[in-house]
Amino acid sequence: MKFELTILGCGSATPTSVRNPSAQVLNILERFFLIDCGEGTQVQLRKFRIKMQRINHIFISHLHGDHYFGLIGLISSMHLLGRKHALQVYAHPDLEKIIQMQLKASDTRLNYQLHFHELQYDKNTLLVDDPYYSVETIVLKHRIPCCGFLFREKPRLKSLRKEKLAEYDIPLSAIPGLREGKDYITPSGAVIPNAEITMNAPPPRAYAYCSDTAYNEQIAEQIKNVDLLYHEATFSQEQEKRANKTFHSTALQAASIAAKANVKKLIIGHYSARYKNIQPLVLEARAVFPETVPAADGEVYKVSLA
Amino acid sequence: MKFELTILGCGSATPTSVRNPSAQVLNILERFFLIDCGEGTQVQLRKFRIKMQRINHIFISHLHGDHYFGLIGLISSMHLLGRKHALQVYAHPDLEKIIQMQLKASDTRLNYQLHFHELQYDKNTLLVDDPYYSVETIVLKHRIPCCGFLFREKPRLKSLRKEKLAEYDIPLSAIPGLREGKDYITPSGAVIPNAEITMNAPPPRAYAYCSDTAYNEQIAEQIKNVDLLYHEATFSQEQEKRANKTFHSTALQAASIAAKANVKKLIIGHYSARYKNIQPLVLEARAVFPETVPAADGEVYKVSLA
Repeated sequence: MKFELTILGCGSATPTSVRNPSAQVLNILERFFLIDCGEGTQVQLRKFRIKMQRINHIFISHLHGDHYFGLIGLISSMHLLGRKHALQVYAHPDLEKIIQMQLKASDTRLNYQLHFHELQYDKNTLLVDDPYYSVETIVLKHRIPCCGFLFREKPRLKSLRKEKLAEYDIPLSAIPGLREGKDYITPSGAVIPNAEITMNAPPPRAYAYCSDTAYNEQIAEQIKNVDLLYHEATFSQEQEKRANKTFHSTALQAASIAAKANVKKLIIGHYSARYKNIQPLVLEARAVFPETVPAADGEVYKVSLA
Repeated sequence: MKFELTILGCGSATPTSVRNPSAQVLNILERFFLIDCGEGTQVQLRKFRIKMQRINHIFISHLHGDHYFGLIGLISSMHLLGRKHALQVYAHPDLEKIIQMQLKASDTRLNYQLHFHELQYDKNTLLVDDPYYSVETIVLKHRIPCCGFLFREKPRLKSLRKEKLAEYDIPLSAIPGLREGKDYITPSGAVIPNAEITMNAPPPRAYAYCSDTAYNEQIAEQIKNVDLLYHEATFSQEQEKRANKTFHSTALQAASIAAKANVKKLIIGHYSARYKNIQPLVLEARAVFPETVPAADGEVYKVSLA
């Protein structure tokens, strides 16, 4: 019952020797979602032992190169390594044109279906609606169209107290309703409260990815109470002007969003290459939101079922 | 007086954990030439301590991704790191379209001039003609238009025997002619042979890059006697059929070309990812051409002045 995030790259515009550009993989119940795909992502996947062919959905936040330059290489390697099953890519429509032009230049006809889904940037939209999870966009503020992604498990059905089923002689036909939370009405018309017969399922887990963005309080409501929030912290508060100018956030601002949204844990990342040591960014964020951790390439964050 | 080749990547289509895709840097007298630019090249440059801004010429053999997917990232990083001076790229014209589309998608206006030069693939052409060196194409045989590159130093002027200048009381005005090899005619009409007054300069050095290509004897004449030949050896001879089918060469074929061209040293590379251990490829080549060495990422080959 995994819900597990692996950071493949947490650098920003220019890669450094220790930080690849943006990319991460979210594993929800053994479905693998790739979020952004900076240059070198395919090698990072190999390094951190995540099988590229298990990725069926790729979400690209925006078309700055540090978030997508690795996509064509990954798509090509998936092809060369024999992929047959479809791949879904959620991105700005220009990305499809770029990728198709690159495939044409190398005279490549993919062995698998590559489906592009056009993102909208002006409002939250539901991208994937599966029985077990959903993915929706988060409206971000950046120099070019950009959005974040919110991954949520669907609520689980309640489990049943077997002794109560026997006690009230509950028929099978009533079970689905009970698991969804309905009360039980006995043949004589008595109401048995659902809580007496069932146990609550563990709450669904959620992860929000917010990179790249200027400080934007409006997202707090949408990402309220998520288990994990990755929020960019390109700069420290000292560089607030530069952050504003470039539509990025400071560590303090990331922490403010985490506090307003009452998330359980904040992961900061997308650090400017100027920060060899990111400890000052971490301390700055923790002063506002103590449950802050710094992203690092290869780091894994697990959310257990409560 | 450097003439020095650094391998940045010697893998083929899919990168492995130890081999990046094709890229190398040739340093001729402190001019830096980048030859091919697979994904991850900018990180390799950093790793092997070659300053990216010193590269002014980039040569892309063909548009299979393992030879150019790293170019847009390098171009972007050059921009972000403040480059002001022009960059020359020699490639198939489709590459310019791809790069321009990528720059447009990210709303990037480069701070420096990016000049694309269209390659021709049906005949050898002179690409760069500098007082100190030249670069020309080598016609290769691949699935899509592809060429190699031949880098040559220009011949150096002869140096003078000072005692002879005094002995024959040679005027300054005669010096340039003597250094170019002319005999000296004394005021009384006597001919002093050039060899008596000058010493030969060390011969110009040359490097030939041949990847990707099917076996093609016709290149031997053009690359005759070069100091260094990099020739792809994607497969071993056991896989000759596969090599033919995919327009690649075997190690044995690479060695045959080296022998026919009488080169001084052969570097094999562009190994298929199937070869974890490339020793069998090396032995296969050495049986035909003993002066064979295997490329490895980070390896440096120096050619001294004779």
